[in-house]
Amino acid sequence: MKVEDLGEFGLIERLTNLITREQMGPDNAAPFGIQLTVDAGDDTAVWSCGSVNMLYTTDTVVEGVHFTRASTPWHDLGWKTIAANVSDIAAMGGRCLYALITLGLPPDTDLDDLESLYQGMIELGNKHGVAIVGGDVVRSPTLFVTVGLTGASDKPPMLRSNAKAGDLLGVTGFIGSSAGGLEILLKGLSVQGGDAEYLKAAHRRPEPCVAQGNTLAERGVTTAMDISDGLLDDLSKLCKASGVSARLDVEKIPLHPALKQVFPQSCLSMALGGGEDYQLLFTAPASLMEQVLTVITPPATVIGEIIDHGLQEVVVVDSNTGEALATPHGGWDHFKGDPPKAEG
Amino acid sequence: MKVEDLGEFGLIERLTNLITREQMGPDNAAPFGIQLTVDAGDDTAVWSCGSVNMLYTTDTVVEGVHFTRASTPWHDLGWKTIAANVSDIAAMGGRCLYALITLGLPPDTDLDDLESLYQGMIELGNKHGVAIVGGDVVRSPTLFVTVGLTGASDKPPMLRSNAKAGDLLGVTGFIGSSAGGLEILLKGLSVQGGDAEYLKAAHRRPEPCVAQGNTLAERGVTTAMDISDGLLDDLSKLCKASGVSARLDVEKIPLHPALKQVFPQSCLSMALGGGEDYQLLFTAPASLMEQVLTVITPPATVIGEIIDHGLQEVVVVDSNTGEALATPHGGWDHFKGDPPKAEG
Repeated sequence: MKVEDLGEFGLIERLTNLITREQMGPDNAAPFGIQLTVDAGDDTAVWSCGSVNMLYTTDTVVEGVHFTRASTPWHDLGWKTIAANVSDIAAMGGRCLYALITLGLPPDTDLDDLESLYQGMIELGNKHGVAIVGGDVVRSPTLFVTVGLTGASDKPPMLRSNAKAGDLLGVTGFIGSSAGGLEILLKGLSVQGGDAEYLKAAHRRPEPCVAQGNTLAERGVTTAMDISDGLLDDLSKLCKASGVSARLDVEKIPLHPALKQVFPQSCLSMALGGGEDYQLLFTAPASLMEQVLTVITPPATVIGEIIDHGLQEVVVVDSNTGEALATPHGGWDHFKGDPPKAEG
Repeated sequence: MKVEDLGEFGLIERLTNLITREQMGPDNAAPFGIQLTVDAGDDTAVWSCGSVNMLYTTDTVVEGVHFTRASTPWHDLGWKTIAANVSDIAAMGGRCLYALITLGLPPDTDLDDLESLYQGMIELGNKHGVAIVGGDVVRSPTLFVTVGLTGASDKPPMLRSNAKAGDLLGVTGFIGSSAGGLEILLKGLSVQGGDAEYLKAAHRRPEPCVAQGNTLAERGVTTAMDISDGLLDDLSKLCKASGVSARLDVEKIPLHPALKQVFPQSCLSMALGGGEDYQLLFTAPASLMEQVLTVITPPATVIGEIIDHGLQEVVVVDSNTGEALATPHGGWDHFKGDPPKAEG
């Protein structure tokens, strides 16, 4: 069987099963008082070292699959590769620490471009205390950038597997803005003014929600993940990991006025299916949610609830009528079909 | 300027300078009692967390640059990608902990091949307590595998920058065996018997020196690095990092009898220039070296000494005459010139 037939998530499941079955080296962690607390399957791996939870995540972008040089300037590419990893740390309620950067480079790559890449990495990294402490540079016919990032937290990490039926479903910021910006950039739409600038910036320079993640964890929220692949897709993963379903009220999804203005027809599908918003999706019992909403800035929004539906699925409903809507296409599986020109 | 003009080490120097100049985010580590102790430029990054030194390294292989599917079966590829990272942890005197695996995959990659890859990773990883705890799978026109590995140590990490003039220069195991095995595999040499099997195994399934690294650190050795790019090349890096020179006695370099038997003419140049032996290079004052040599298994060998020569260079001498020899070509710079058919 080929990877393209199995798909990304089928492949990950097969490899994870293999690891679970055959991995059994000596436990080097115990003599150091270290204990693994979050294994494969969440935004980051977590282990305890004394009273500190160490976090560890990685994320990769490949030219022609995740971005093209035409639509993503090098500085933006650097920003976004760090942002994707910072967002994973944010989703656990952690703070960023140390990064290792791997560059796979065609030999004719320009040094000035790489310096722009690093300036983008450093600009976003400096906002969140990321320290680049090394890495690897290799020759490759295909350009790729892999970031590995560690972090720390003194609170229990928020997991995607902790959602319970009855929890309300919250989301930070606005959803779909990045997809709107990508649409403008890819199609060269002649949209001018502040609305277009906001949407393009949302795509090119996303702001991971570290402060919000810390607030959530401090207030006792235990379920969160970041929205990187699209709201529907990521919410589906949360449901599967928690063994629950979710009811999503489409009218409540926070859409930025600029998105509604520029894309009145497609704004909702952008919010449901578009990726790279790097907002946080979280759940909490109603009483805790009420407290959290009073302290989190920028504001968060309740967009639905966790239900015990048996099927671990996302039911999208019309808030006014309560009727279930047909579920639009979710996130993109990179291994099935040709990739779009650039996905951001 | 293009990367191919600057070369790998020139590029790393430029990017490191950029980081040093512009990186300055908030120090998230301090409130957790965490402190970075080894930054970019060594085998692994190191930070202290209480009494534990946390180690963090990464290494990548790219198809057509570091290996070909023809000469490297998937199981071997998995073994070697983990081995390269375990070796970096070994060089610091640490124990392995948690790995994140990134796969860049063409969509027509076969699932059975990937399961072989993971079986190779797990087989070597199980020997050293590596726990794969997640990663990333992405579509890529070029196959690549990135491993990020963390480790721990309760002893001060051994660094490549601690060598002092007067130190003796030691090396574990045998050098050049991997290059001999690669030569047999690449050229399809019709060498049979135990010698050929030993050399091919040295290339296909290298054994990182974790136990030896731990012994060295326990005994108080403070300077070490692993030999991944070739003895001359890596010793040059050690000299540069420490601001010293080295005198290398060619006759003392430990060559396995099989290497001398199969390659009587080229065994020495394989030892000097061939990579992927994953033995440890270390230095210590004579009295400490004497103690270490009595306890380290398999045995280690003194192959020269650190000298204060002003030029931070490796002087290769004939042990019998004491005369300096012309220095053969060192390690391979992936960005300069076309890569060989496969480098292992």
